[in-house]
Amino acid sequence: VASSEAQAEHRLWGGRFSGGLAPEAERLNRSLPVDYRLWPHDLRAARAWARALYRAAFLDATRLARILEGLDVVEQRLTDGAAIGAPDEDVHTLIERLLFDVVGDLAGALNTGRSRNDQVATDLRLWCRDAVAALDREVASLAWALHAKAADGIEVVLPGYTHGQRAQPVRWAYVLLAHAWPLVRDRGRLAAAAHRGEELPLGAGALAGSGVAVDRAWLCGELGFARVAPNALDVTGDRDFATDLVFAAGLIAQHVARLAAELALYASGEFGFIRLADGYATGSSLMPQKRNPDIFELARGKGARIVGDLITLLQLPRGLPAGYHKDLQEDKPALFDAVDQLLLTLPAVRGAVATLEPVPERMRAALDPLMLATDLADGLAARTVPFRDAHRMIGELVRVAATEGVPLTDVPATVAARVHPALPELLASLGSWEASVERRSTVGGSSREAVQRQLAELEQVLDGSGTGTHM
Amino acid sequence: VASSEAQAEHRLWGGRFSGGLAPEAERLNRSLPVDYRLWPHDLRAARAWARALYRAAFLDATRLARILEGLDVVEQRLTDGAAIGAPDEDVHTLIERLLFDVVGDLAGALNTGRSRNDQVATDLRLWCRDAVAALDREVASLAWALHAKAADGIEVVLPGYTHGQRAQPVRWAYVLLAHAWPLVRDRGRLAAAAHRGEELPLGAGALAGSGVAVDRAWLCGELGFARVAPNALDVTGDRDFATDLVFAAGLIAQHVARLAAELALYASGEFGFIRLADGYATGSSLMPQKRNPDIFELARGKGARIVGDLITLLQLPRGLPAGYHKDLQEDKPALFDAVDQLLLTLPAVRGAVATLEPVPERMRAALDPLMLATDLADGLAARTVPFRDAHRMIGELVRVAATEGVPLTDVPATVAARVHPALPELLASLGSWEASVERRSTVGGSSREAVQRQLAELEQVLDGSGTGTHM
Amino acid sequence: VASSEAQAEHRLWGGRFSGGLAPEAERLNRSLPVDYRLWPHDLRAARAWARALYRAAFLDATRLARILEGLDVVEQRLTDGAAIGAPDEDVHTLIERLLFDVVGDLAGALNTGRSRNDQVATDLRLWCRDAVAALDREVASLAWALHAKAADGIEVVLPGYTHGQRAQPVRWAYVLLAHAWPLVRDRGRLAAAAHRGEELPLGAGALAGSGVAVDRAWLCGELGFARVAPNALDVTGDRDFATDLVFAAGLIAQHVARLAAELALYASGEFGFIRLADGYATGSSLMPQKRNPDIFELARGKGARIVGDLITLLQLPRGLPAGYHKDLQEDKPALFDAVDQLLLTLPAVRGAVATLEPVPERMRAALDPLMLATDLADGLAARTVPFRDAHRMIGELVRVAATEGVPLTDVPATVAARVHPALPELLASLGSWEASVERRSTVGGSSREAVQRQLAELEQVLDGSGTGTHM
Amino acid sequence: VASSEAQAEHRLWGGRFSGGLAPEAERLNRSLPVDYRLWPHDLRAARAWARALYRAAFLDATRLARILEGLDVVEQRLTDGAAIGAPDEDVHTLIERLLFDVVGDLAGALNTGRSRNDQVATDLRLWCRDAVAALDREVASLAWALHAKAADGIEVVLPGYTHGQRAQPVRWAYVLLAHAWPLVRDRGRLAAAAHRGEELPLGAGALAGSGVAVDRAWLCGELGFARVAPNALDVTGDRDFATDLVFAAGLIAQHVARLAAELALYASGEFGFIRLADGYATGSSLMPQKRNPDIFELARGKGARIVGDLITLLQLPRGLPAGYHKDLQEDKPALFDAVDQLLLTLPAVRGAVATLEPVPERMRAALDPLMLATDLADGLAARTVPFRDAHRMIGELVRVAATEGVPLTDVPATVAARVHPALPELLASLGSWEASVERRSTVGGSSREAVQRQLAELEQVLDGSGTGTHM
Repeated sequence: VASSEAQAEHRLWGGRFSGGLAPEAERLNRSLPVDYRLWPHDLRAARAWARALYRAAFLDATRLARILEGLDVVEQRLTDGAAIGAPDEDVHTLIERLLFDVVGDLAGALNTGRSRNDQVATDLRLWCRDAVAALDREVASLAWALHAKAADGIEVVLPGYTHGQRAQPVRWAYVLLAHAWPLVRDRGRLAAAAHRGEELPLGAGALAGSGVAVDRAWLCGELGFARVAPNALDVTGDRDFATDLVFAAGLIAQHVARLAAELALYASGEFGFIRLADGYATGSSLMPQKRNPDIFELARGKGARIVGDLITLLQLPRGLPAGYHKDLQEDKPALFDAVDQLLLTLPAVRGAVATLEPVPERMRAALDPLMLATDLADGLAARTVPFRDAHRMIGELVRVAATEGVPLTDVPATVAARVHPALPELLASLGSWEASVERRSTVGGSSREAVQRQLAELEQVLDGSGTGTHM
Repeated sequence: VASSEAQAEHRLWGGRFSGGLAPEAERLNRSLPVDYRLWPHDLRAARAWARALYRAAFLDATRLARILEGLDVVEQRLTDGAAIGAPDEDVHTLIERLLFDVVGDLAGALNTGRSRNDQVATDLRLWCRDAVAALDREVASLAWALHAKAADGIEVVLPGYTHGQRAQPVRWAYVLLAHAWPLVRDRGRLAAAAHRGEELPLGAGALAGSGVAVDRAWLCGELGFARVAPNALDVTGDRDFATDLVFAAGLIAQHVARLAAELALYASGEFGFIRLADGYATGSSLMPQKRNPDIFELARGKGARIVGDLITLLQLPRGLPAGYHKDLQEDKPALFDAVDQLLLTLPAVRGAVATLEPVPERMRAALDPLMLATDLADGLAARTVPFRDAHRMIGELVRVAATEGVPLTDVPATVAARVHPALPELLASLGSWEASVERRSTVGGSSREAVQRQLAELEQVLDGSGTGTHM
Repeated sequence: VASSEAQAEHRLWGGRFSGGLAPEAERLNRSLPVDYRLWPHDLRAARAWARALYRAAFLDATRLARILEGLDVVEQRLTDGAAIGAPDEDVHTLIERLLFDVVGDLAGALNTGRSRNDQVATDLRLWCRDAVAALDREVASLAWALHAKAADGIEVVLPGYTHGQRAQPVRWAYVLLAHAWPLVRDRGRLAAAAHRGEELPLGAGALAGSGVAVDRAWLCGELGFARVAPNALDVTGDRDFATDLVFAAGLIAQHVARLAAELALYASGEFGFIRLADGYATGSSLMPQKRNPDIFELARGKGARIVGDLITLLQLPRGLPAGYHKDLQEDKPALFDAVDQLLLTLPAVRGAVATLEPVPERMRAALDPLMLATDLADGLAARTVPFRDAHRMIGELVRVAATEGVPLTDVPATVAARVHPALPELLASLGSWEASVERRSTVGGSSREAVQRQLAELEQVLDGSGTGTHM
Repeated sequence: VASSEAQAEHRLWGGRFSGGLAPEAERLNRSLPVDYRLWPHDLRAARAWARALYRAAFLDATRLARILEGLDVVEQRLTDGAAIGAPDEDVHTLIERLLFDVVGDLAGALNTGRSRNDQVATDLRLWCRDAVAALDREVASLAWALHAKAADGIEVVLPGYTHGQRAQPVRWAYVLLAHAWPLVRDRGRLAAAAHRGEELPLGAGALAGSGVAVDRAWLCGELGFARVAPNALDVTGDRDFATDLVFAAGLIAQHVARLAAELALYASGEFGFIRLADGYATGSSLMPQKRNPDIFELARGKGARIVGDLITLLQLPRGLPAGYHKDLQEDKPALFDAVDQLLLTLPAVRGAVATLEPVPERMRAALDPLMLATDLADGLAARTVPFRDAHRMIGELVRVAATEGVPLTDVPATVAARVHPALPELLASLGSWEASVERRSTVGGSSREAVQRQLAELEQVLDGSGTGTHM
């Protein structure tokens, strides 16, 4: 009851209403348990708005000073935990109540010409700006961890897979790098999402522009936005900037999930290509021998969750006319969850990557002579056999080897020659696995030089010395 | 650090590991902040398991008694809030630690033959059983509120709409009932979801059945399940029961959202068909005159969120082999959120429905003579004009009325007769709006008798005296 | 142009409009390329409607006979392909035009008292009825294929997995059965979806009931529905029956995807547990040696697609008031796609399952002595060591074995005894893999008898001789 | 059978297989009915690849010339419809078969060093490039239509809405512009998606780089890509470029849906703010008077469908290791559908916008004096009443007016003065609706000058003469 009264007394509306909200309506309506964490951004916007009102002569210097000092006190109280368990409707009401405690009725002057519609749009964009910065750091950090691991894995050869089947030999470094480049693209997505979000809502009022002639260009600079939103009705009802961010988060989560899925597979008994550090493996409550790749499995699971968040955001504005509708209040749980979960996942995966140990002997043991089949076909093609025919011939050789029960590389020369006269010589010249890998030396291939070039390019992109076109 | 030590000491695995989890891995891995609320269900399953171990002679009577007494103490401590801020990995570990505090090493005996895989599957199904019951009560309650409102709204006629356009006159009761029937179907969905979920996992072990010969049929009865899950690998990796429930929740949310959308529209200035009670309307921080239908808007928004939760659940098992994977840990945030949000939304919407006031004069004012066009076409059809021709003729009459600038019902007889000789008489006999509504008297129609029949049928279905085939 | 004219001439509306639709509007509006396949259901409903009009005295016997004969001719023309490339707006208009070709203006009489809103709702429910039957057959057929394969796989032991890690030995039959039971539940879902969909829309008119006093109870029986929809506004705007079906399809697809994912993994070089028949494996255009499990990969991919269809359906009615809106026209592409794709996928997966060959020697080679750890812990627990302590001790034994570089089963007795005095005896009595499997003999476990019981139970459920509670 | 034989003969693999695919496997596996439309892009890539092979000395000039001439013939045959009903597995096989018809075995030489994995990735990126261009044109065209309509709507004042409730008066132009700016941002998203997609896959081989030392940098320029993909394993398994595009399509669809929803509402009888042209309205098969906004409703529905497509794409790679898996074949139906549907929707909506007529008298009639409440509160705030207090006072005034049953602007001066002494004067000076609109003159507001500035800015952005920062 006390809470309800406190709310009714300080809520930002209600002059025309008799009585307060019904309890079950209030429970549904309250957003403070979710939006309280916007307080630093709401305070930042409040200070800028106070100065803008002063510049527009709606506040004199004395009142401005009192408000700014009051906001300092409020900030301290919030830092000390005043938001926890507070009874207010939302973060804006909370801050006004706290300011009222310090400066009295003057607190109400701060709301001149603004509305919660432009306030929350501003707060949320400021929050997204911070979130992008945090995500970018963690994504880069994971990419660096992959880079470091790859730099140590140039010499190690393992099967490369398509369709989950052994395909051609590749370097371990090369596989790790295949997971780093998507993260580079993700940083580009984050930057683009941030850029598109840098439109100032403050001064838009509820839908039609502020009734006070504040200088929005000045506000824009003060709050570090790139430009003033050109239409107040649009900007108060627009949550695309949040959807952009959660989409980027969704793709990051997906890339992390693919990395995690591949590493979880390599940690299985059948592959045995890597060994997880004890600090990143977990056990079973029943089976004492288990070493489970929970971190990687959870990373996969989080991917599903973040896509769920994205769907929520994509559905929210469906069928709504322009401008603010309360449906949009549901943007924050999804947005916050996507960012929180990703920030929880990325460091754990980075740690797991940084501490895992490859097991080169298991990788090498998995190399199957059949994986040299393409080299043989390429060899025939280089002797001007049309590739399609070469492919068919080597397919026959594969069948012959299976029938004879010998590895592809041990098919007797006489038998091979029946398929094509050049085959015995080609078989003899196949050489080592290393030699096979080196045959794919074009840009982006798995040869030593191509991989080293990749490592250098990735380093440049990650430390910002590159051209940046990858983003 | 202390928390980490406490965890390491009491965690349910770890004999083969050196050191604990890395901090960022632990943060990702811990599920207690989400799954703590399963403690009543975990306790219930623990008591049944203790008895089953006793029946299988793995516990003697004394030790069983000590464990059961210990679980009573644990229950009291959890009721008193012991889960809050606890440092444990998950709810199972928490309960074992608390039990250890009471009965010492004997606590460890309770884990004989069970695994967290079958435990959590059991707990979660018990939780879903409670959730279904709670949802069913609230859905029924909203349906009753619609019934009550409809019973008061038989006399009131308003436009019925298709494509958002005035179509034919209907009764206000009839519109409300159109939103009650989907809820009836939803109760059927909830019941079916519950029924499908009533498979006992306990005794499935981690994947292959328990190593202890417990009597699962007895356990099944003890815990109130309908049948023993036939395959342990299936039941430990299956979350379909949760997906079924969240799908039902998603459709409920959608039905509530459609109701909310229609009522929000009717509360607009342009429609003005209903007036919200002060306890279910909110104001604006900027515009003193506003009365916003926030409850209905939030109900729409929650619909989006719950579909997001469903998507998370639908994606989680994608591409996983049978059996438990840690990805499944992400089932709980989505499941709990869907149920919580719906339980938050339904009472508020019910209250808003129960307290809103229809504004019959505004409804009547919106009745447009054009809405009688079908009656005229039906009248021609009854005179053996093929309906398609009748439709075309009345379409012409509509154009004529528009050209002449008169209501459809005021087209001069001579003009109407040129379209079809019977039209003047038909126009003259159209009668009141009530008369038009009464013309649609088939089962499910909007005539008085058909609506009264519907009300009676709905009442029977809701109070369980009906045949139940609607579900 | 000709097409546009034909359309304008025969479209089911337009008397009040001048000119036709703009070409780009017509392109968007036309649904015939999608809904043409409803023609058999539209014809069936048309015949019933004609009889109902006759029974309501809106048609005399002669006209009824002409219409019914006309519909026979129309059916023949449609069977001969008249729908292909037809210019009409939708399937209803197509059929009216064809009927007009046969019976002239009388064709227009058939539309008395009905609307495309109740027509399409009826057609679509009839279509879903057929779709459920077809899906049910295919799902059962896949379950039978798993049953048959399992019946041949009782003797074969392989590792069971959790978290993708070897956990405990299980029977090959047991793994296959774990994928059959979800399909049994799916049949229950299909049946429930079908049952909920069996509400007759016909006679609902556009929104308010038919203006013609047809006998809907008679129509209900004639068309085989279970009950008359109780509210015309509800039933014309309701697509829950389609969503129910696509949800069931989505879960089926997910279960097939999990089966496919597990089999694709087992077909990899590292596992090598199964070998696909040539008729169900594909090659690479580059690598002559490849045998790719495309069927299983496509089955996984279809799962994603069908969930996409479900999302479309779940979003469509968001925020729509009760009753028909044209948004609902988008229900059909999603519904048809989900069913079509599943009907394409199920037979291919069934064939791949039926023809694959297990490779028991590879399965056996993957059995790792560590998988006996739980048996050892259970053994200690049976000697009254609290299981948690037993678990810790065996965890230590695992570490010792790793340190010593020996299999768990070969840890020297003196070393084992230091962990617990009973361990040497337990190690000595472990016995074969078969013996380990037999230790899990509770209902649902992997022992021979438990698996045989499962096979019998599944057979009963599939052939309908069981109690059916599984659904 | 013939088709199956033709397939087997010309398929791009199979040397190691006995027999063909089982019929149901072939049906699932074939992608030609979907991917045939990539033929222009596959041909373009084929020509570039032929030249690259020549430059790498794998083809001599004569053979290159024969292949290029052969591809010209193939192009002509495809233009003439050779893809329709063709029996081949996919577009690549189709083209090889057609080329074989012209140049014989030499056709097989074209496949040297390439794989369908890098081919399809290349084709699809080229297709997306065209799709982005087409979408961008249509989005711009819709934005121009809104601009033109807005330019004609500066003088017309109507209620602006938040929460679906009348809020403050705004200009009709201003509302239309609120829907144009999201489209401007969408063009930025399309451009960014396109840019990120401009990575050359060709030469990546199946996973590890081409075995032929082709000059990928040359290929990159030849095909107009921005850069060579840095890792072949990444680029062959990456479909982010398609997901980016479909995400952009999803937001475009959402923006169109919001516009459509608002216009459909304004076309209702209750609002009556606009009148649709006959060419963009449709009728009812039952109700002769109906004028339905089907175009706008379908636009809303397409939004749901395109989000469904996005979800499909987001799920496809979930849990897949790096590199190509056949799951990815399901990318094309979703990608093509999203683009096709949007290209179907945009022109129809543009036409409907361009031809609708505003009804200024209905807009003006909806202006309610209550909408001046904020102006009064602002007026008090300008007299240094803290805004919160001013808000409360005007709230009281609203209640008083309701109690007295008079419009807000007609509250007697004596009564108003009791709320605040300045109110009578403020009430007297409120002026016209135009005057109220003019009070919100900050950038982005609804005053005449602010709107004219917006129009000019939008024009600059759309014709490319602006700074482009909006994107």
